[in-house]
Amino acid sequence: MHTQTASMKAHLYEKVAGRITTMIEKGTLRPGERVPSVRKLNEQLGVSMSTVLQAYALLEDRGVLEARPQSGFYVRLRQRELPPEPRTSKPTISATKVDISLLAEEVHEAALNPHNVPLGCATGSPDLLPSAKLNRLLGAIARRSVSATNRYDSPQGHHELLHQIARRSLDWGCHLTSEDLIITFGATEALNLCLRAVTKPGDTIAVESPTYFGFLQILESLNLKALEIPTHPREGMSLEGLETALRREKIAACFVVGNFHNPLGSCMPEANKKALVETLSRRGIPLLEDDVYGDLFFGNSRPKPCKAFDKHGMVLTCSSFSKTLSPGYRVGWAAPGKFREHVRRLKLTNTISTATLPQMAIAEMLQNGGYDRYMRHLRKVYEMQMQVMSQAICKYFPESTKITRPMGGHVLWVEFPIAVDSFELYHKALEKNISIVPGPLFSPKRLYRNFIRLNCGYPYTERIERAMITLGQIAARML
Amino acid sequence: MHTQTASMKAHLYEKVAGRITTMIEKGTLRPGERVPSVRKLNEQLGVSMSTVLQAYALLEDRGVLEARPQSGFYVRLRQRELPPEPRTSKPTISATKVDISLLAEEVHEAALNPHNVPLGCATGSPDLLPSAKLNRLLGAIARRSVSATNRYDSPQGHHELLHQIARRSLDWGCHLTSEDLIITFGATEALNLCLRAVTKPGDTIAVESPTYFGFLQILESLNLKALEIPTHPREGMSLEGLETALRREKIAACFVVGNFHNPLGSCMPEANKKALVETLSRRGIPLLEDDVYGDLFFGNSRPKPCKAFDKHGMVLTCSSFSKTLSPGYRVGWAAPGKFREHVRRLKLTNTISTATLPQMAIAEMLQNGGYDRYMRHLRKVYEMQMQVMSQAICKYFPESTKITRPMGGHVLWVEFPIAVDSFELYHKALEKNISIVPGPLFSPKRLYRNFIRLNCGYPYTERIERAMITLGQIAARML
Repeated sequence: MHTQTASMKAHLYEKVAGRITTMIEKGTLRPGERVPSVRKLNEQLGVSMSTVLQAYALLEDRGVLEARPQSGFYVRLRQRELPPEPRTSKPTISATKVDISLLAEEVHEAALNPHNVPLGCATGSPDLLPSAKLNRLLGAIARRSVSATNRYDSPQGHHELLHQIARRSLDWGCHLTSEDLIITFGATEALNLCLRAVTKPGDTIAVESPTYFGFLQILESLNLKALEIPTHPREGMSLEGLETALRREKIAACFVVGNFHNPLGSCMPEANKKALVETLSRRGIPLLEDDVYGDLFFGNSRPKPCKAFDKHGMVLTCSSFSKTLSPGYRVGWAAPGKFREHVRRLKLTNTISTATLPQMAIAEMLQNGGYDRYMRHLRKVYEMQMQVMSQAICKYFPESTKITRPMGGHVLWVEFPIAVDSFELYHKALEKNISIVPGPLFSPKRLYRNFIRLNCGYPYTERIERAMITLGQIAARML
Repeated sequence: MHTQTASMKAHLYEKVAGRITTMIEKGTLRPGERVPSVRKLNEQLGVSMSTVLQAYALLEDRGVLEARPQSGFYVRLRQRELPPEPRTSKPTISATKVDISLLAEEVHEAALNPHNVPLGCATGSPDLLPSAKLNRLLGAIARRSVSATNRYDSPQGHHELLHQIARRSLDWGCHLTSEDLIITFGATEALNLCLRAVTKPGDTIAVESPTYFGFLQILESLNLKALEIPTHPREGMSLEGLETALRREKIAACFVVGNFHNPLGSCMPEANKKALVETLSRRGIPLLEDDVYGDLFFGNSRPKPCKAFDKHGMVLTCSSFSKTLSPGYRVGWAAPGKFREHVRRLKLTNTISTATLPQMAIAEMLQNGGYDRYMRHLRKVYEMQMQVMSQAICKYFPESTKITRPMGGHVLWVEFPIAVDSFELYHKALEKNISIVPGPLFSPKRLYRNFIRLNCGYPYTERIERAMITLGQIAARML
């Protein structure tokens, strides 16, 4: 047994630390990635575990690694100074006929194509979602409940899933009962039915600017007009802007994504949500809210939906499990307040009932499947991926590109210098098998010509890094 | 070993035959049921197998049993003279605003309630459907295709299911390709999307009288008017009646259930289908067709849908697997002819895409799961159940009740004497936990006050027989 002097030890620590640093510099270890475990490096390098630990501590002191409790050491993101955020949008306040669905269909198709780098569709990687677990639960139910799974379910939805959602609504400051809820084929069917319940063709709907393009497609298909309201990149719809619009135009309903807006990532402060609900309720205007990203918060607690401030049944909340569990299961829900009966009748008419098995599997996941534990993990992953993507934008996109600072969800809204045409960028990126969504899709007035939305739902692999470099290069050539 | 004389043997055959006859008379063996196998009776009665076989042959000669190849002996239906059919309907030809959805919702709810005898909902027993097989296929796919099953599928549908439907369309005299098809959440979503593609609110749609009430609900929700066309109980929509309507009113589209109409069971002769398609195409009027019962034919071959005669892409065919495989899976499809692009866009807007796993399971069932073999069996079962139910009507319902003679599907349309009010019958039956559908639900003009629809999708058990007796008694008290 050798005795080592302090300086010999220090030298050894430095040597091991140097190996790690080289791996980072060469890109073998990437920002945000976990470094090899102490045991593994102990075996690989033939040095003691305590030496590895000391080397990691050294690198932590120097800001190269960061320790995470019960998880290990990670390559720290080089915290470049992030570029500024986009400013509050300032659309002119007038209703617009919506005409985006042809383009939306094309973009959606490109986003779904598995050969394209998935920066287009706002969806998490199926490998991050608990797909295997969910499929196992579903398989077990399929075996043991043969008859029950092959009937028409109640149009309102499977009783167990209704119960589970109602139970969880307490955590969001809502006190929904099963009776308040209707299960739908995704939030998309919920939004369709709720809109149909509170509007008639030709009506005008106030929306954030930018707004979720899927909603604009629905407006177009129902022959409804959109009125874009100024929107802050962190705080969401401007209440002042809305007041102005309400004074000028007849508005049949208002639509917001209050929690982690798509594409902005904004989260309305509670006070704003409360004021929004009160302003609209006072005027008898229904508020449609899309809360699909609500569970994907990076902060300490789940932000409340607007529904939590609804005293008169005027808020119609729509959500789904497509962003948290499985887009392919097509299970969502609506809590339509006082419009419940009408929405339930429309559900029966639109699709009779939601498929039984996927509902039962999701109910089981919510009840016994470890949904909360899994969500804690997913939120961390998304937060990390969002940071890494922001850093990549910082590194590879043209100078004076601006980006949002979402505190939840998994999409970034990127503002290029004015000379960059996002349609051109979209087409040229697609030639290189990269899917993105051009900004004007999020605006019935076709604003945001120099903006794009980037999905951060997939792990930051080399393939994605290469795609980010390519996007940066294409954009740079337009300057 | 004993030698038996011919007369001793004959005596023994008669004794065994007598035992069987007693079982039939006491109701232990019911009309349409299979009698115990030769081997089983051989064991039970302690007589030789050849004796049992001789006894069965005796009973076959006497018309008590019937032999079915490769299946065994069955208790023959006592072929009472069936009552006459209802006559061709004669609604006045004028468009009607539809207002049935509140009632339809109530009836639907009662029909779904498992505590009620299931004579209401037009659906097969989950125990007759190959639910276990289908769930097994689904479970296996869920295990082996984790990632693929948890993505958004293409809005058009899963490629393998599209392929399987296209392949089968050759058997119906259609030559559809995958590109012609769009997968939907049941035929109901397909009908919604197709209607939305070819009409605008306020338009008038020509329908059979009576017509499927689910379709009327859709018309109501889309603010469309219905125009009832005279309809023959075996041959479907009267082409003369339609011609008259076309001369008098502006009709935006026509809707038929050409094969085994719900509730009539009628099947349009090929020549009529061809003439219908030509008449409408010449005038540029789209034809919507619901073919969910097409595979449930009792004859020798599957009747063609109207689509088979469509030369100009003016037929929009909608169908599903809800009547043949599983209502709970919610998988249907549309073949919208030249309106394909529009319908596909509406599908994306309405529900994004159909759930992936149920589509894959059904594709597998169609490809390797023995769908055809199973359908041969199901058709026989439905035909038998329909016969038994007709006999029960004959036996238990008031004299001069009339019934249809469907050659496919699993619903009967029953015309009571004029004094019978089907709403009263419906409510009183429901008090006894029996669900039926009152006739006026099938008519926007609220005709058919003395008609009901009866589902024959469930095996004729004692519970169902008791329900039929009760229905007959309630009706009799109204005379």
